[in-house]
Amino acid sequence: MKRIDLFVIPTELERASLDSRQVVVVDVLRSCTSIAVALLNGAAKIIPVKTVEEATRLHETLDPKTSLLCGEREGRKVSGFALGNSPREFTRKKVNGATIIFASTNASPLMAGPLSGRDQILLGYVNVSAVAKAVAEVGTDVTIVCAGRNGRFSLEDAACAGALIHRLTDRQPDLDLNDAATVARDFDVDHGTAPETILRRSEHGRYLVELGFEEDIPVCASIDTAPVVPYLKEGRIMAPATAEAGRR
Amino acid sequence: MKRIDLFVIPTELERASLDSRQVVVVDVLRSCTSIAVALLNGAAKIIPVKTVEEATRLHETLDPKTSLLCGEREGRKVSGFALGNSPREFTRKKVNGATIIFASTNASPLMAGPLSGRDQILLGYVNVSAVAKAVAEVGTDVTIVCAGRNGRFSLEDAACAGALIHRLTDRQPDLDLNDAATVARDFDVDHGTAPETILRRSEHGRYLVELGFEEDIPVCASIDTAPVVPYLKEGRIMAPATAEAGRR
Repeated sequence: MKRIDLFVIPTELERASLDSRQVVVVDVLRSCTSIAVALLNGAAKIIPVKTVEEATRLHETLDPKTSLLCGEREGRKVSGFALGNSPREFTRKKVNGATIIFASTNASPLMAGPLSGRDQILLGYVNVSAVAKAVAEVGTDVTIVCAGRNGRFSLEDAACAGALIHRLTDRQPDLDLNDAATVARDFDVDHGTAPETILRRSEHGRYLVELGFEEDIPVCASIDTAPVVPYLKEGRIMAPATAEAGRR
Repeated sequence: MKRIDLFVIPTELERASLDSRQVVVVDVLRSCTSIAVALLNGAAKIIPVKTVEEATRLHETLDPKTSLLCGEREGRKVSGFALGNSPREFTRKKVNGATIIFASTNASPLMAGPLSGRDQILLGYVNVSAVAKAVAEVGTDVTIVCAGRNGRFSLEDAACAGALIHRLTDRQPDLDLNDAATVARDFDVDHGTAPETILRRSEHGRYLVELGFEEDIPVCASIDTAPVVPYLKEGRIMAPATAEAGRR
């Protein structure tokens, strides 16, 4: 690994070359956190889709006993879906062994849209050290993409990307960083010991508190509490052990 | 003033409402710095245009004795133009009384493109305190737009926006900030005492050093050395005193 590029808004990707790079997607509030928690709690796989309609159509083709419709619009659970996008909903009781169809506002349209066909690793604070280890082991240059919020810069995603970059530059201080990666790393150096404060300052965090999801904030801010590495490959997100089992 | 929104990449503007807002454009390396220096040194007005071709066509319609073609592509002076985009070129001897036609890569296409028809104030480190005072006097909510670099996040522009936001929140601590404004302000609080270090760390700064423009870095990093407020109105950039003189 020689270089890390951070794109703080998905539209920046239009000008990026992603070939021969490990792509990392970050959405702290809340998709990547929920996905890591779901895999930790035994979900078999997670299929990100671009729209609620696509989720519903896909669900009709799968076994209703083992597949779950999950997703949100404007932070709220989609009507008729089994689960929303609060990581506290993704309990072992609910998700163990399940195939989860996942339709969120920012992350899943990015994963299944502009990044479709690319292998991706999904990042939140809950798995940042595990992702740092995995990315360092891959060894190629890294492109981190913030899901952002409705196409805009998102404090918590840039900050969490900074937490990953900080860990990677600690391992390898000579890494070349683009400007956004430099700012994000500095932000983690200066403020990264208190992710919950960062999330509470962010626009999305404040919005979730207003919606009644205040208890999600400490969950999404807790470093390394879901130490799994969600890999998105061929349209499905699995953790390595699960992926191995799936290949047998 | 109740709120400051910072857009770190011009494409973010697509989702922004700019009505009833004071728009500030920041391009530290080097357009906004050069423009402030040009006005300080007596330039009558500066006309930003989107392309080199447009600059040449406009120049043919103006008095060649009092109008100057200025601009760069990839940091280098456009062949046949009187001046490039180094603030050290915009001396009183060269620009006093002149109409400058200005074609840069990032700033002038933003000013004359997506922001066309909007009044704008132009920001660099060289005039940050003067701009803070002017913006506070206007009193409306503020939208700051970073010119960025080829559509990407630019460290020095975000940092300089942070220097402005820091000054405005010092005057009025209860201002509501969007996420990007929060990060930029924090960055200035943590690193703003050494703008030259910021510029030297930035991708654009390193590129300019490679091109041979190292001496531009301390000029663009020097706080309040060109304390004029460039106003862009009806397609022309003037400083207030100049604007007054023009109306007589």
